[in-house]
Amino acid sequence: MTITKFVIPEIIFGMNSIHQAGEACKRLGATKALVVSDSGVANAGWLDIVIQSCQTAKLSYTTFIETTTNPKDSETEAGSKHFLTHGCDAVIGVGGGSALDSAKGIALLSSNKGKIRDYEGIDKIHTPLPPMVMVMTTAGSGSEVSQFSVIVDSDREKKMIIISKSLVPDIAIIDPNTLTTKEAELTAATGMDVLTHAIESYVSIASTPLTDVQAKNALSLVSRFLRPSVASKRNIEAKEAMAMASLQAGLAFSNAILGAAHAISHSIGGKYLLPHGEINAILLPHVMEFNRMAVPRRFREMADIMGIDTRTLTDTEAGIEAIKFVKELSQDIGAPSTLTEVGITREMVDVIGMTALEDACMITNPRDMSLTQINDLLLKAL
Amino acid sequence: MTITKFVIPEIIFGMNSIHQAGEACKRLGATKALVVSDSGVANAGWLDIVIQSCQTAKLSYTTFIETTTNPKDSETEAGSKHFLTHGCDAVIGVGGGSALDSAKGIALLSSNKGKIRDYEGIDKIHTPLPPMVMVMTTAGSGSEVSQFSVIVDSDREKKMIIISKSLVPDIAIIDPNTLTTKEAELTAATGMDVLTHAIESYVSIASTPLTDVQAKNALSLVSRFLRPSVASKRNIEAKEAMAMASLQAGLAFSNAILGAAHAISHSIGGKYLLPHGEINAILLPHVMEFNRMAVPRRFREMADIMGIDTRTLTDTEAGIEAIKFVKELSQDIGAPSTLTEVGITREMVDVIGMTALEDACMITNPRDMSLTQINDLLLKAL
Repeated sequence: MTITKFVIPEIIFGMNSIHQAGEACKRLGATKALVVSDSGVANAGWLDIVIQSCQTAKLSYTTFIETTTNPKDSETEAGSKHFLTHGCDAVIGVGGGSALDSAKGIALLSSNKGKIRDYEGIDKIHTPLPPMVMVMTTAGSGSEVSQFSVIVDSDREKKMIIISKSLVPDIAIIDPNTLTTKEAELTAATGMDVLTHAIESYVSIASTPLTDVQAKNALSLVSRFLRPSVASKRNIEAKEAMAMASLQAGLAFSNAILGAAHAISHSIGGKYLLPHGEINAILLPHVMEFNRMAVPRRFREMADIMGIDTRTLTDTEAGIEAIKFVKELSQDIGAPSTLTEVGITREMVDVIGMTALEDACMITNPRDMSLTQINDLLLKAL
Repeated sequence: MTITKFVIPEIIFGMNSIHQAGEACKRLGATKALVVSDSGVANAGWLDIVIQSCQTAKLSYTTFIETTTNPKDSETEAGSKHFLTHGCDAVIGVGGGSALDSAKGIALLSSNKGKIRDYEGIDKIHTPLPPMVMVMTTAGSGSEVSQFSVIVDSDREKKMIIISKSLVPDIAIIDPNTLTTKEAELTAATGMDVLTHAIESYVSIASTPLTDVQAKNALSLVSRFLRPSVASKRNIEAKEAMAMASLQAGLAFSNAILGAAHAISHSIGGKYLLPHGEINAILLPHVMEFNRMAVPRRFREMADIMGIDTRTLTDTEAGIEAIKFVKELSQDIGAPSTLTEVGITREMVDVIGMTALEDACMITNPRDMSLTQINDLLLKAL
């Protein structure tokens, strides 16, 4: 085994833990926090609770809620100006992956000079970031624990993947209660993102025993609890399980990185600003089919974790059953199954493929992938 | 589920990772490190490698190698004086649990006033500690990742348990290569300590899904690799597996705390300065027998993980098989099985029981334990 590194934030997990946001930030030495969020989270009332927690903790704050889905470089620039103008010394992110990735981008630009694109790629950040507390309100991105931030470069119409230990928040707060305000469609899309994180990190060439235990438990939880979580806003057991799945999948992929589904999904998301979870849901079975031959034993283990009885199956057969399981789950919860459904056409394939080939997540995919192979996969997924 | 917290250091794991100690400490902003170790580790050559890594990283250092097995309050006081006199601003611990617990105690006293006993118990530390890098050289204590430090109060002849998030090191370095210089007897005793960590944290009333995945994987690794690791100094696969088991059991118990075996073991170790791992090996099957009725399902799961075919067994029968498995493993690797073997007599039982009852680890034991029950257990274990 080569030398492996594993980094995660301090984690606070549980019902109503969101009320601890202000105190957690204060504990990190903050005197004034920039609270980064979006309008959806504000409307659901979660932003108010975080603001209240700052007041209770006697922590000054100012808010910036101009982040959007697939967060843009321009928003992080505006946010970091807001941070500096108001004399902030810490960031609290509140929301799903977009808000948190944006909050990380703002923390990055507030402490490091230049533009977000200067930090695209792996390990490009050299100046320490201000303390960061991330409050996750969707069971999806894992951004609250990861060393990733994904920001859209508006000029190049491209998602920039920034990977650095500096982007691991200091404290992650995961409150399953925040999932109870999400519509079924969003629960389904973000849940498929969790599933993609668990599977891609488990078969990643950078996986380790430390990431494996997290990925396997996440996969087990998604297999059992994503359907019930999509079925009801009020199923607290399912919300807790999906919050934990999202967290554990985040711990896994932050340290094992991802694969071809995310590489291609980033490419599509950056160019056409489509929902990340839905694109992953469409691509995942196709990428699994492509990768199956690279790691047959891991596919068998995944089938076992999904609850498939593999005793009489070969590794190949078990892998095929695992893919079938993913397709059925996706269908049951109403996730889209073709790229055509979300507006991708045959003409767009070449451009998508080229950008995907250069994505940092492609490096850890267990099977080598050529441009032709990416394009073939995209055509199948149309 | 109540709110749960999970804290771990940055982890660097792998063959020859010990060479990164100096650079890791420098990265934390250190200018001069106190390197804390003991004579055994120094004689095995591991201290020299760490010193060399400081030189390579251009990090000033001074050494303190006066720590002993079951580290004493007087040693940590001497160490912290050394730290302050030499103008150090960081601590690097190199060794097994004793050296690392001592290094933590030194970091504690260097930054917080008073005596170690002022911090006995849970969450008594309020001033931040200097940066700490812990290099683990035995697969046992898990101190490199835990929020525990166990120091002997020489006046009271008692092990003080100090539990605080402040004691979680900044960076943990685990190099399986360092295990290749350990004698079989030490590998056996420390391995039984790992097993006790895994089992006690898994049945702890403070266990969470985040600690469970770590405890289960640790249990699986110990079940398969402790025998081969004791059998040969040169079995690298077994050394890597036991190093990972120790790490994961440490991540589990640091956040789920332990149980009655550790409570009683601390009491015996503090009074008679006996090897911690050996005492745990003796007590573990007795504590399991006592606890079995509290968490029958967890005992069944442990039996499954050990590789026992439980399909035709009740939970109770599976639990009994798990205890048998532990006894056989302990016997195979030559660990002591009675307290009499290590010099404990009937007359000592009352005093041991009284101190054990007050130990912080007793709080999370899954079955309530009275003084009479502790004494009965000790008599059985004689």
